[in-house]
Amino acid sequence: MYDLPKSMKAAVLYGEGDLRVTERPVPVPEGQEVLVKVDSCAICGTDPKIVAHGWPNHPPYGEFIPGHEFTGTIVKLGSRAFGWKLGDRVAVEPHKGCGICENCIRGLYTTCLNYGDLEKGHRHYGFTANGGYAEYAVNHINTLHRVPESISLEAATLATTAGTVIYGLERAGWVRPSDFVVVSGPGPIGLMAVQVARACGAGAVMLSGTREERLSIGRKVGASHTVNVREQDLASEVTKLTDGKGADLVVECSGDPSAAAAAIDITKKSGRISFIGIYSQPVTLALNNLVQKNIQAAGGKAEGGWALERGMPLIANGSVLTEPLITHRFKLDDINEAMDTFARRLGGAIKVIVKP
Amino acid sequence: MYDLPKSMKAAVLYGEGDLRVTERPVPVPEGQEVLVKVDSCAICGTDPKIVAHGWPNHPPYGEFIPGHEFTGTIVKLGSRAFGWKLGDRVAVEPHKGCGICENCIRGLYTTCLNYGDLEKGHRHYGFTANGGYAEYAVNHINTLHRVPESISLEAATLATTAGTVIYGLERAGWVRPSDFVVVSGPGPIGLMAVQVARACGAGAVMLSGTREERLSIGRKVGASHTVNVREQDLASEVTKLTDGKGADLVVECSGDPSAAAAAIDITKKSGRISFIGIYSQPVTLALNNLVQKNIQAAGGKAEGGWALERGMPLIANGSVLTEPLITHRFKLDDINEAMDTFARRLGGAIKVIVKP
Amino acid sequence: MYDLPKSMKAAVLYGEGDLRVTERPVPVPEGQEVLVKVDSCAICGTDPKIVAHGWPNHPPYGEFIPGHEFTGTIVKLGSRAFGWKLGDRVAVEPHKGCGICENCIRGLYTTCLNYGDLEKGHRHYGFTANGGYAEYAVNHINTLHRVPESISLEAATLATTAGTVIYGLERAGWVRPSDFVVVSGPGPIGLMAVQVARACGAGAVMLSGTREERLSIGRKVGASHTVNVREQDLASEVTKLTDGKGADLVVECSGDPSAAAAAIDITKKSGRISFIGIYSQPVTLALNNLVQKNIQAAGGKAEGGWALERGMPLIANGSVLTEPLITHRFKLDDINEAMDTFARRLGGAIKVIVKP
Amino acid sequence: MYDLPKSMKAAVLYGEGDLRVTERPVPVPEGQEVLVKVDSCAICGTDPKIVAHGWPNHPPYGEFIPGHEFTGTIVKLGSRAFGWKLGDRVAVEPHKGCGICENCIRGLYTTCLNYGDLEKGHRHYGFTANGGYAEYAVNHINTLHRVPESISLEAATLATTAGTVIYGLERAGWVRPSDFVVVSGPGPIGLMAVQVARACGAGAVMLSGTREERLSIGRKVGASHTVNVREQDLASEVTKLTDGKGADLVVECSGDPSAAAAAIDITKKSGRISFIGIYSQPVTLALNNLVQKNIQAAGGKAEGGWALERGMPLIANGSVLTEPLITHRFKLDDINEAMDTFARRLGGAIKVIVKP
Repeated sequence: MYDLPKSMKAAVLYGEGDLRVTERPVPVPEGQEVLVKVDSCAICGTDPKIVAHGWPNHPPYGEFIPGHEFTGTIVKLGSRAFGWKLGDRVAVEPHKGCGICENCIRGLYTTCLNYGDLEKGHRHYGFTANGGYAEYAVNHINTLHRVPESISLEAATLATTAGTVIYGLERAGWVRPSDFVVVSGPGPIGLMAVQVARACGAGAVMLSGTREERLSIGRKVGASHTVNVREQDLASEVTKLTDGKGADLVVECSGDPSAAAAAIDITKKSGRISFIGIYSQPVTLALNNLVQKNIQAAGGKAEGGWALERGMPLIANGSVLTEPLITHRFKLDDINEAMDTFARRLGGAIKVIVKP
Repeated sequence: MYDLPKSMKAAVLYGEGDLRVTERPVPVPEGQEVLVKVDSCAICGTDPKIVAHGWPNHPPYGEFIPGHEFTGTIVKLGSRAFGWKLGDRVAVEPHKGCGICENCIRGLYTTCLNYGDLEKGHRHYGFTANGGYAEYAVNHINTLHRVPESISLEAATLATTAGTVIYGLERAGWVRPSDFVVVSGPGPIGLMAVQVARACGAGAVMLSGTREERLSIGRKVGASHTVNVREQDLASEVTKLTDGKGADLVVECSGDPSAAAAAIDITKKSGRISFIGIYSQPVTLALNNLVQKNIQAAGGKAEGGWALERGMPLIANGSVLTEPLITHRFKLDDINEAMDTFARRLGGAIKVIVKP
Repeated sequence: MYDLPKSMKAAVLYGEGDLRVTERPVPVPEGQEVLVKVDSCAICGTDPKIVAHGWPNHPPYGEFIPGHEFTGTIVKLGSRAFGWKLGDRVAVEPHKGCGICENCIRGLYTTCLNYGDLEKGHRHYGFTANGGYAEYAVNHINTLHRVPESISLEAATLATTAGTVIYGLERAGWVRPSDFVVVSGPGPIGLMAVQVARACGAGAVMLSGTREERLSIGRKVGASHTVNVREQDLASEVTKLTDGKGADLVVECSGDPSAAAAAIDITKKSGRISFIGIYSQPVTLALNNLVQKNIQAAGGKAEGGWALERGMPLIANGSVLTEPLITHRFKLDDINEAMDTFARRLGGAIKVIVKP
Repeated sequence: MYDLPKSMKAAVLYGEGDLRVTERPVPVPEGQEVLVKVDSCAICGTDPKIVAHGWPNHPPYGEFIPGHEFTGTIVKLGSRAFGWKLGDRVAVEPHKGCGICENCIRGLYTTCLNYGDLEKGHRHYGFTANGGYAEYAVNHINTLHRVPESISLEAATLATTAGTVIYGLERAGWVRPSDFVVVSGPGPIGLMAVQVARACGAGAVMLSGTREERLSIGRKVGASHTVNVREQDLASEVTKLTDGKGADLVVECSGDPSAAAAAIDITKKSGRISFIGIYSQPVTLALNNLVQKNIQAAGGKAEGGWALERGMPLIANGSVLTEPLITHRFKLDDINEAMDTFARRLGGAIKVIVKP
């Protein structure tokens, strides 16, 4: 039994843009929950938005602890936390479905029909329930994924990123052996997608983006080709390398409307597109080409399909590298600096880890 | 052996907008081709566009015979027309792949990588090769589908329409038992989609559009609900009938940008969309909702997957009605009037048949 | 609020073969459970086996109430029975997954990895938890399916049968439009499979079996062809009707080893087989033909995928008939006679309903 | 233009067991065929059977040249050999569909409904048409796969083996990231399956078999675990390593009835099995477990889906090694010794190459 304090340090959102590190009671796991002593929590692209604007159904300002890509060690078990024991090292998954709606029953829990309804059992940790920018966090066992000894808890924060990519691929029909894959957007998701695609048998992985620095990291982690769309014409490059056919699979991670539109252009006839970017504005597409080219396109909502579990062995066996993506580490006390570093990409920031 | 004339009547495109019925030599089937004595040829939405503007790689003006939804009787066999005999009643499929490209080899012949290349064996009858607005037409055996005795050759022209819908459903993962299906666009494709969806086990089929007359035909052929989007809010109606969940499957047949955008709105989380409309302009979508709602969307290119063959039994057993869709019949000599009637929907025209 | 008695009549298994109708306390729904006042409970093929031999992890003899295909009205709600209210008419699904294992999280709850573990939340009503041969039964809300007013609660007991077929089809890739489907085994499952296949767009449904009486019911509910394998050669018949190609889909419902072996013979090259029979002995197959014929075969475990929900509209709209399958009705007091009637097929028994 | 001889050396089957190296006319490519100057032809497990017993529809004894896993250089083009030029290095695929049957049109050409019918255009090189145990061979362009410069023509003979595995995986739903895969049978197919599974993102690949020598090669090419079923209990080992769950995917390559039966035992509930072994006798299975465990099983017929094309990049980038599998090389003159070496596994023979 761990000797647990009554209170803990946590980053609490007090209002729009007002994130403060303060003392909070250590939460108590109930039923199928556990208490995790947080080791590391990575900043996700949505975090600065949450800090700036809150989130639908978030816990009340003054109580809301964001953070959803975290890892740690189990230090307390709820009464029905079957399958887990104290000391287990875990990475957590942000989404926990209600378990009782049609989508959850069919395994589609990231699109739970009771999103945000705490009473019915839904949890979106770091969004509608408290998360991991704290010394301790409570999580339902369905969100726990065992971290093998060979993976550090810091590295394991990227299991969420891997899971997002893997689920996006699942929805779009997986990578198929020797596919020519184009990943657009060399952010954390894109740099992960390059690696997962490679690990899943892609024949070639082209990464496109606007920043040479990021593209060079892409090459380091396995992109066979990179295209700086400010300097080169993506469609021409794809045409050249695929003998005019186009990409078997495009994984659009940038969230950029022009990249989303380009995805249809560069996809092979009867090819596939996985959309996993965040599009903050409407996107104008040549939809007719989707039809005429017989393209299948899938949106991938978060890390569904228990995809984090699939990511772990890929990290453990080195097919997916986390080290080139983790550029900065901050103490929890410095979370605002961490957010700023991440949001403004200071010092080439990619993934920024906050350590309570 | 049939006694064949040397020349035949045919509607020949002489230039943009210049379609004339004239005498042409009866074409000669070679190798795996047959000669079809045309009984009926239905006007498709693309036909007026072809007449007005031609088509990429079309046969030379002065020789080009359009028409691609036709039926008839085999009256002459090429030397290698295996499996067919004189007198066989057939409906033809417009697309014949080259048979040698990667897509054709994998069965994706409507997206043949040698589109329009006659030398390599591709044919798109009525587009890049001569079609069925004529007394006789040559077709490759891969495009032939046997018409059961119980189906008239007139009715069988709609097998192409059925095939387009069926392939659109195949690409989007089929209709699943008791799906709530929304079909947008009550044109010939949409009215067919209503029937095919019903025949494939849909629990409810809602048809949306702007013309009450067409919607009423939709109800007649099996739509359980209709929504006139000029008077009702489609999303509200879907919400109401699905207990807030949205449609399991949307089949977008209208080609209208706002209907395409609405498709994402009304689809259930983790639902599916089949896009089979013709979008003559770019479409602006809330792409982020495709991602957040985990939607799978597929473009369906024409009647691939040998889908006409799947349509025939549905017509034969009465699950799919053709009579309510066939509103007009014209003689080949009156093809320009027929086109006009179709294009301007004179007299409530839906499918217009031309009979050589 | 319903006025509920303290005790109820129930059929309790006291030991192998010893089923007695006796008084039991009315169970109390907790949390996400409801109390159902049972209207009808259909006898399933496994019931006589359960009565004869018990079931792994069954409730203790003297307390165990079997029965798992039942319907009724909600008369009491657990504290967290979200979405339901008193008076709701429901059909119940036997399987309730633990909700916390990998399979349940991915929606594969009929293959829950914690089968039979009550503490972890798994329930198999009528098998490892008490079921519906009683005046009242407790059910988790995940197992409830709303019965439309147009369906009688007696008819709705067959939603379970429909669900089994539908899930078997889902696992095997669904029925595709105009498929030539062979259903082997004209028991309740087979007679349901005929109807569901038809409702899902099959072009032809052949039913094979050994009893002419059952085959004639098959024809009544939609089989386009029947084959009495005692008198005709099934393979020859399939060959004849499919122009030598074989069946697109075989749904093996008989549980008979020779029918299972025949399934491979009669399936088209690259066709599909859904195995949903219960095979009480090992089956010897020409497995090489599965390989050489490129066949996909799927076992379907019970009514997964929330398939009962898909069955209900098919029953409601008359695509699936229940009346020809329900041959007998008994009072709960006469359950042993009901079992005997069912097991020995007295009076042509197909589905036998027990009414508390 | 190459200067071609009139006659060539070829291994001709004169009768059962009577394979002789003799002079034959160099064949002439027509239409969409090319003439390949054979570099290497690997012996496949079916070859000794063909030599011993012939094959249905084989070319006449005295003319029949077997051999179907070969590579070489194009030295002459048919009149319509689009896309190829003299000097191109190619690996050939044994199956060429008729192109006109329903299965071919839908891309399922290894299950062509006109198998063995030369007139209709089907070819099974080395089986129903002459193959590659000769200095020259004629092949249809659909069977050609470009060999990158970085792969030797000897190594490229294994593209067929890779293709067989890849298609077997396609039919069974691909390898999914981090799957626990069991490959049974450490023959050439099994040793290839280990590598392809690994290359496609398997988390662990266990290889089972009876010969320690082969298992050790398995470990060398990427098996994370091996089980000698003569010494260890396969099911226990799988149970141990998967925490009791079983394998996500079993690839049965051995053709051994007990291994086929074991596949069902060791597969996870709701897992998948790819059967690609050759079963020379009926197989007795616990079919009920396939149902109860909700397993999807697929037979994979040869290298369909244009799978050789998918194998090439995996060989080129080193994910799939050929060197450890190619154990022996013989001159064409010594083909009978080569066959004997292969069939009796002399000197640990795995893949044996014959070089004209």
